[in-house]
Amino acid sequence: MEFLNTYLIYLIPVFGLIGVLFMVIKSAWVTKQPTGDESMTELAGYIADGAMAFLRAEWKVLGYFVAVAGVLLAWSGTTVATSSPVIAISFIIGAFLSAFAGYLGMRIATKSNVRTTQAAKTSLAQALKVSFTGGTVMGLGVAGLAIIGLGSLFIVFYTMYVVNTGGNVNGEAMAKALDVLAGFSLGAESIALFARVGGGIYTKAADVGADLVGKVEAGIPEDDVRNPATIADNVGDNVGDVAGMGADLFGSYVATMLATMVLGREIVSHDNMGGIAPVLLPMVIAGLGLIFSIVGAALVRIKNETDSVQNALNMGNWASIVLTAIATYFVVQWMLPNDAMHLTRDLDANGVIKEGSLVFTKNGVFGSILVGLVVGTLMSIITEYYTAMGKRPVLSIIKQSSTGHATNIIGGLAIGMESTVLPILVLASGIYGSYYFAGLYGVAIAAAGMMATTAMQLAIDAFGPIADNAGGIAEMSQLPPEVRHRTDNLDAVGNTTAATGKGFAIASAALTSLALFAAFVGVAGIEHIDIYKANVLAGLFVGGMIPFIFSALCISAVGRAAMAMVEEVRRQFREIPGIMEYKARPEYEKCVEISTKASIREMVAPGLIALITPIVIGFAFGPEVLGGLLAGVTVSGVLMGIFQSNAGGAWDNAKKSFEKGVEINGEMFYKKSEPHKASVTGDTVGDPFKDTSGPSMNILIKLMSIVSLVIAPHLNSEVNHSQRLQNELKLRSMHTQTIHVDKKV
Amino acid sequence: MEFLNTYLIYLIPVFGLIGVLFMVIKSAWVTKQPTGDESMTELAGYIADGAMAFLRAEWKVLGYFVAVAGVLLAWSGTTVATSSPVIAISFIIGAFLSAFAGYLGMRIATKSNVRTTQAAKTSLAQALKVSFTGGTVMGLGVAGLAIIGLGSLFIVFYTMYVVNTGGNVNGEAMAKALDVLAGFSLGAESIALFARVGGGIYTKAADVGADLVGKVEAGIPEDDVRNPATIADNVGDNVGDVAGMGADLFGSYVATMLATMVLGREIVSHDNMGGIAPVLLPMVIAGLGLIFSIVGAALVRIKNETDSVQNALNMGNWASIVLTAIATYFVVQWMLPNDAMHLTRDLDANGVIKEGSLVFTKNGVFGSILVGLVVGTLMSIITEYYTAMGKRPVLSIIKQSSTGHATNIIGGLAIGMESTVLPILVLASGIYGSYYFAGLYGVAIAAAGMMATTAMQLAIDAFGPIADNAGGIAEMSQLPPEVRHRTDNLDAVGNTTAATGKGFAIASAALTSLALFAAFVGVAGIEHIDIYKANVLAGLFVGGMIPFIFSALCISAVGRAAMAMVEEVRRQFREIPGIMEYKARPEYEKCVEISTKASIREMVAPGLIALITPIVIGFAFGPEVLGGLLAGVTVSGVLMGIFQSNAGGAWDNAKKSFEKGVEINGEMFYKKSEPHKASVTGDTVGDPFKDTSGPSMNILIKLMSIVSLVIAPHLNSEVNHSQRLQNELKLRSMHTQTIHVDKKV
Repeated sequence: MEFLNTYLIYLIPVFGLIGVLFMVIKSAWVTKQPTGDESMTELAGYIADGAMAFLRAEWKVLGYFVAVAGVLLAWSGTTVATSSPVIAISFIIGAFLSAFAGYLGMRIATKSNVRTTQAAKTSLAQALKVSFTGGTVMGLGVAGLAIIGLGSLFIVFYTMYVVNTGGNVNGEAMAKALDVLAGFSLGAESIALFARVGGGIYTKAADVGADLVGKVEAGIPEDDVRNPATIADNVGDNVGDVAGMGADLFGSYVATMLATMVLGREIVSHDNMGGIAPVLLPMVIAGLGLIFSIVGAALVRIKNETDSVQNALNMGNWASIVLTAIATYFVVQWMLPNDAMHLTRDLDANGVIKEGSLVFTKNGVFGSILVGLVVGTLMSIITEYYTAMGKRPVLSIIKQSSTGHATNIIGGLAIGMESTVLPILVLASGIYGSYYFAGLYGVAIAAAGMMATTAMQLAIDAFGPIADNAGGIAEMSQLPPEVRHRTDNLDAVGNTTAATGKGFAIASAALTSLALFAAFVGVAGIEHIDIYKANVLAGLFVGGMIPFIFSALCISAVGRAAMAMVEEVRRQFREIPGIMEYKARPEYEKCVEISTKASIREMVAPGLIALITPIVIGFAFGPEVLGGLLAGVTVSGVLMGIFQSNAGGAWDNAKKSFEKGVEINGEMFYKKSEPHKASVTGDTVGDPFKDTSGPSMNILIKLMSIVSLVIAPHLNSEVNHSQRLQNELKLRSMHTQTIHVDKKV
Repeated sequence: MEFLNTYLIYLIPVFGLIGVLFMVIKSAWVTKQPTGDESMTELAGYIADGAMAFLRAEWKVLGYFVAVAGVLLAWSGTTVATSSPVIAISFIIGAFLSAFAGYLGMRIATKSNVRTTQAAKTSLAQALKVSFTGGTVMGLGVAGLAIIGLGSLFIVFYTMYVVNTGGNVNGEAMAKALDVLAGFSLGAESIALFARVGGGIYTKAADVGADLVGKVEAGIPEDDVRNPATIADNVGDNVGDVAGMGADLFGSYVATMLATMVLGREIVSHDNMGGIAPVLLPMVIAGLGLIFSIVGAALVRIKNETDSVQNALNMGNWASIVLTAIATYFVVQWMLPNDAMHLTRDLDANGVIKEGSLVFTKNGVFGSILVGLVVGTLMSIITEYYTAMGKRPVLSIIKQSSTGHATNIIGGLAIGMESTVLPILVLASGIYGSYYFAGLYGVAIAAAGMMATTAMQLAIDAFGPIADNAGGIAEMSQLPPEVRHRTDNLDAVGNTTAATGKGFAIASAALTSLALFAAFVGVAGIEHIDIYKANVLAGLFVGGMIPFIFSALCISAVGRAAMAMVEEVRRQFREIPGIMEYKARPEYEKCVEISTKASIREMVAPGLIALITPIVIGFAFGPEVLGGLLAGVTVSGVLMGIFQSNAGGAWDNAKKSFEKGVEINGEMFYKKSEPHKASVTGDTVGDPFKDTSGPSMNILIKLMSIVSLVIAPHLNSEVNHSQRLQNELKLRSMHTQTIHVDKKV
């Protein structure tokens, strides 16, 4: 135990290494699986090439961005004592690992898809095994790399700035170590934003473009090999749902740990780890979650064709969550002190805690973690209710499809807006509850608890698009119907897990942002964010508006890119004779190129808004106004995220319900009926909602919080402080003379 | 001057009386105008009867509500020293006057419509004169009653609680007078909410119902006398756009003055009016605005058929704004002291102003008023840009109509979201600027300045639906085309003024809410609203969600009511033979009844959310959390209001553009083309957006702020305070023992 106390800090990256080790083993297993016939391999090759083409194009742009931002960060690191130019290195590593995690995920996904198709020739059980193992590789890779990166860098910076200088673990020295570490999170989240937005635009431009010309104009089915945009469409599933989601969760995972660590620095803890147990705890919990995700993943299997795939996934998911919760209880008991903990700022000059200060115990911390687990679970359940087939929300949209396109849209918008109520109440209660148990550290550690099993969550999320791709390959290769039937079974489950995964991602982003927000306030050296002040309130308004313009940009980007795709597909049908008779191969790569270029071009504007706004507001108006801005962005972003994701999900499943036939006022309606056409309109509107702008809200709110956290020491520096004070005095008082007044009236 | 100083307070209701006097004169003039032939009179009679039927049904429900709320208010008034049971009387008068103003407006509108049709037989100039005079009657009635009511009640309560008790005009005595006066505003705003929501549901249910069966299924034109729902449709214009808008602006007008007065109490002012000049100022400015609205209205006239109606309206509008601004300058110079003013709370025990306190001058106050005028003007211009034909936003929607229903919807949603950017920046700058000039009193007086010419704004707003109705009557009575041509000319201008009026209404609601918010903080006795506290942040989240569920309820209510209307119209066509051959009269009153019942039923749930939420949150979690809730509601409500109103307006004008033909990629498209059909879908989706949920946001945010202001003294009372303190301590600290800690690490 003594040994563990001393060397726990070095154990953290080892958890990550174990994850990566298992990833390599599972990846090798997937690669060994048979790839099927030549046609399948060829098609899978196109998809893999297209995905890599996108990644390369994205990396080129991001390379410039990372270089410029790195230089700026290095320079800014020299200007204040509590930062360092080393932050640039930290930033570059974060950016690199995030991009690398996306690459690993995409590579395994583009390998697993065709192997899943091949496995589906034999049995459902084998198809599940291949596709889910592919997902697991992604999950373990993301979580493993995150823990290795954050854990190792923490060891380095802690040694450099705290141990070697003999600095105080609650003081400036540790603040510097964590500020430099924040660069890692900034790098990860920046890449995530571009990956999510770019990927989201890519996948929907290709999807809408392929559908509008292929299905509607040319009358060929989905995933038909004659459609020039079909490869781009399948590439889109990988770059949007796999790489985008992976980068998103990599960012959340890192940001949550970091925010908790920053808040943990302020806690005076008489523990056996030199007082840094509250700082280490989130990383240890993440490590445990990674290990138990490996255990949970092993439980995901079925034996017979009729076994429930959903139950198998639930089994693995629940096992990893419950095991992590139990292990966390013992770890908290061991690591945290028996004395109550409190914040450094709550001590007066005599070392006595001020009256009314916040004090909390190790059991309180565990209580907060449980709150986080409950919030994550409830959010997933609510999201599923609002987007699942056969439940009231989707049924109401189906009914409103019977009176036309407009009423279908009105119904979906109303459901999306309504669906914000329960998640917000859960989230507000979660904030209230986790704060009750352990203050703002409690809010952060709740998020960390929720994110602990990220590896498992991501495995379940990534499994969906792999199965979807497998179905696409089966269709394009004209395989027998039972193959498609098996991949459809997996795909249907994948749709549900995609919905619940989105609920989980939004909840985690919201709690992470709040944790970052709290960390920002501490580092910026302000006491309050008082919206009774006019300038802070103005910041709140501007912040609330950002998710609206961000969504508008994403949505209209999809519209423009889809238009370009439509024109290219029309051109190919017109200019390349023999496509429709399978005599000529369409120029898939042209469509891939259009989607790639459009998405890279269109991701820049929203990305820059997220990065630059906090910097401008922070330096022009000071940290408190920036705090108002962040609160506005977070509240409005969470609402818009839930609204758009759920409306999109509900429209999608309303449309899918027509495939099996639906009953409206006693009459049965199927595909190609008028109500079905109305439901297709809703689904198309919902596409950019649920796959581009909706999920981007998560990264928007996290990235703006991290940027603020990174610039916080600069806003707190003495020079800026006095200047801001002057500005504020100027603002508050046009006549600074003191006037003596009689109290007569 | 001496005389004026003393009796100014009594002059305020006289301004109102002058307004009402002019209203009576102008109303008599309208009534004297010829009503046209028997058929026209009969149809106008149906519309007037239908409108009255709605009002009577609404009044019945509201009667119960006012009785119950009045009893509760009277009881609550007995429980704290700074309130009184008299608040119930104040509340009932406010509710009555608001309902009465709506009644007056509706009566004159249902008289002016047919007389405008008749006038349109002679000339455009005469038609404008009749319809605009009708609008002026409404505007003068609303503003006049508001000033009479608020001014007289202030005299009564000021005399009762301050003069007769020898109380301090900056102290508890004045606080009590203003708290009781707040009941008036609460009454007005409660009625406004139900009128706006009920009217909004009514008008869109009738509109959608009439269109879906009449135009689409039966193939008869709009406003055809054979359509059973056509009368309900025309009634809807009156109950939604006239009575709803009137009650909305009545509420804003009163609430703005009240909020400024509450903030004015805290100002120590050495003026010649016993220190109450800052309290009287907003009412005096409103009085001036009313007088100059009468002057401006006299300038609205044209001579020839080809004269621009829009220019005539602009002329009158600008004249009233500029004259009011000039007069306000002199009034501010006269009323306010030459010394700098400051807040009571900024004095220390020795009567010396604390360092860093806010002080401001009379010129600062005038500066804030100018900021308010600029904000109102810019908001109108921006709204017009985003919803006008021929501008980039509407053109982009037209272009996206060429690829179908879905892209039209996506385009409109993106435009609506984008359209929040400039208004929010203007609003944030306005908050910042008006605060810079005169603190929070400056924010409130900016709103008061903006609202000063409400009479003129409302005259312009109400003129639109009157012209619309006149066109309807012309169509139903099968009058010659030049009559319809003239009313169409007026109607087109009315559409533009409706859009700019909405921009103005949102801006005024936002500033009013902020003023009320500031007043609430003062009365509730809290110093900050610190969103760094977890419970306040949770309140912010819940508040942000309310506009979403409110919108969802409004939108789906329209859907349900329209469904009921569709079924009734289908039934009449089926069961009453001879309707289509003009041989049998449809049962108009059945459709009127359906719209009436549905709207009354559906307005209850959203109304109760707005009324009850602040009470529950305030008493359960205290004033600071309630402050967070209000900030969330205001930010999210303003955003959702702008988004929905502008998206709806842009869709509407995209559809209207097809009437004259539009060019998309070099090809001309007209009515009945495929792109036009897509644009009709957008227009139908936009209907509840722009006429039900969008404008309701204004009242939602104002009403929740007023409810909070009224309950603020209760949240501030000693008993509650100590109880909340205990709760807070419990929350902040699970272990209240003070622990001594060594500062070792």
